[in-house]
Amino acid sequence: MIPVLEIFGPTVQGEGAVIGRKTMFVRTAGCDYRCSWCDSAFTWDGSAKEDIRKMTPEEIYAELLEAGGDTFDHVTISGGNPALLPQIAGLLDLFKEKGIVSALETQGSKFQPWFRDIDELTISPKPPSSGMITDFERLRHILQNVSGQNVSLKVVVFNEEDLAYAKKVHHLFPDVPFYLQVGNDRLEEVDDQKLLVHLAGRYEWLINLVMPDPDFKRVRVLPQLHTFVWGNKKGV
Amino acid sequence: MIPVLEIFGPTVQGEGAVIGRKTMFVRTAGCDYRCSWCDSAFTWDGSAKEDIRKMTPEEIYAELLEAGGDTFDHVTISGGNPALLPQIAGLLDLFKEKGIVSALETQGSKFQPWFRDIDELTISPKPPSSGMITDFERLRHILQNVSGQNVSLKVVVFNEEDLAYAKKVHHLFPDVPFYLQVGNDRLEEVDDQKLLVHLAGRYEWLINLVMPDPDFKRVRVLPQLHTFVWGNKKGV
Ligand code: SF4
Ligand code: SF4
Repeated sequence: MIPVLEIFGPTVQGEGAVIGRKTMFVRTAGCDYRCSWCDSAFTWDGSAKEDIRKMTPEEIYAELLEAGGDTFDHVTISGGNPALLPQIAGLLDLFKEKGIVSALETQGSKFQPWFRDIDELTISPKPPSSGMITDFERLRHILQNVSGQNVSLKVVVFNEEDLAYAKKVHHLFPDVPFYLQVGNDRLEEVDDQKLLVHLAGRYEWLINLVMPDPDFKRVRVLPQLHTFVWGNKKGV
Repeated sequence: MIPVLEIFGPTVQGEGAVIGRKTMFVRTAGCDYRCSWCDSAFTWDGSAKEDIRKMTPEEIYAELLEAGGDTFDHVTISGGNPALLPQIAGLLDLFKEKGIVSALETQGSKFQPWFRDIDELTISPKPPSSGMITDFERLRHILQNVSGQNVSLKVVVFNEEDLAYAKKVHHLFPDVPFYLQVGNDRLEEVDDQKLLVHLAGRYEWLINLVMPDPDFKRVRVLPQLHTFVWGNKKGV
């Protein structure tokens, strides 16, 4: 049984390597991290405890069909940290059977053999502003285990210290496609237009830091498009 | 000699398959189309005629280095329609020699053998709102000639008729990665914040049309990020 908090879509993937891709989302409960700026804290802080449903792969797929009908061929598994769950393997088997393309984002603190069955894997180690400490040996182990498949690294950046951390990650794994994402430092903002203007400004701030830097050449700098469109709303 | 109108960067690629990628831009003069909403009309309407410089590949590369120094490894060739220029071949030879990754966008009205030397090729046929007529045989011929390389199709959408056209294109070439881009219908807007809010709304409009549509499954829907950050400014 997989602990599920949200199943929604179809919507656009707002971040990373397949930004803009039409996808469904399955959000699992539980995380081994406690990032200071976590935008999905309800997956681990107990606030949504009674919303967690233990579901079989078949039940998840049925609910994806119910929400998305015949309109999708792509599912993003998100968290929390889905890498805590060995039982995701069964869900991926079912996706393969149904011709569904799978994407996963995880912070790189745990490996699961089923990572090899993910079509689009994003490893997103957390920078200093999160308050978390990266285990670089673990990260290296994961990247070695998924080498040859479609994998990318993504670092969220809130400040210049985070950017220095991102540079270290990029330097350690120069051959892995590398994404910088501007962090959302206004999780409480309820005025979508204000948030949009603010985050577009933060995106420009990050671009202005990265463009003159010779250590960042083969890099992509992106915002979170879903916050540009739906602000801090969940489940869209 | 290549007729050049702009050389600038490094900046982010604001559109399409490598959205967010750090890149330099070389904008060539001249277009065989006259799209009603062309955001680069100065490349063909005579208004920037005296700014056109006939440059050798070496001169272009020297100016890229002058502007971008040691900070880039990627150049986007843009127009106008660079596919009008057989002499781009020499520039691509030089890029290959220098280890530069190349990207090109063209509308698919002309083929050049040097398309095969482009690392990231975007074919962007123009929808009805442009006022242009697509030669689908020509488009097919081009896509056949570049099959196996990194190529994508991108259609800009201003209205529902454009979206129907996009669907036709996607249906004709289902195996080519497909991008929908929301058109900028406020080219005269000088208030960047107003434009940002407007275009984010237009992006949501397009998402809302595409998500429930079973004919668009394996599709990516994107805005133009540069307009989100710099509005209608040129050369950024
Ligand atoms: S790893 Fe992700 S889900 Fe877990 S606390 Fe950090 S941001 Fe939140
Ligand atoms: S093809 Fe491109 S450059 Fe040419 S007129 Fe149309 S939008 Fe402008």
